[in-house]
Amino acid sequence: MSRETLDAAARQTELAKLKGWSDAGDAVAKTFRFRDFSEAFGFMTRAALVAEKMDHHPDWKNVYKTVEVRLSTHDAGGVTALDFKLAAAMDKIAGA
Amino acid sequence: MSRETLDAAARQTELAKLKGWSDAGDAVAKTFRFRDFSEAFGFMTRAALVAEKMDHHPDWKNVYKTVEVRLSTHDAGGVTALDFKLAAAMDKIAGA
Repeated sequence: MSRETLDAAARQTELAKLKGWSDAGDAVAKTFRFRDFSEAFGFMTRAALVAEKMDHHPDWKNVYKTVEVRLSTHDAGGVTALDFKLAAAMDKIAGA
Repeated sequence: MSRETLDAAARQTELAKLKGWSDAGDAVAKTFRFRDFSEAFGFMTRAALVAEKMDHHPDWKNVYKTVEVRLSTHDAGGVTALDFKLAAAMDKIAGA
């Protein structure tokens, strides 16, 4: 998968295919909300397995039932197709 | 376990029993560093089980192999003995 960074127009095109993700310039971001900690951490665990398999990892913060996710391709210095692949996988796990 | 908030002196006494935790006023904080994502997320998973059992959950952020943890007792509005119990459990899991 290409590690070329996507410009703002390309990011918008990709974001339009997803739900609830926003453009943070050097990253795409979403806050997932669950019923409780167990459900939030269950989501994180499933997402972690996908991330490890992709060798592409999220920056994320968990406070009880919320998980704030930021995705960027650090070694490319911006957002790439990899980030959108992981974003779509996370949405699928969360049932979005 | 008491949900009374601990004052600065009491926090210092408790912090002195741990390694690498700092006083953030309304929380105690530590950044754990691991070898890779797998080890970092393994730590988080074990800590999540302890937190769920305690019904006391961390605020935490994971970026690849680092895990930044902040512990506070939200409903008490500060740091209580519960936070130090969870802090000690996390240190034990991390092998600190």
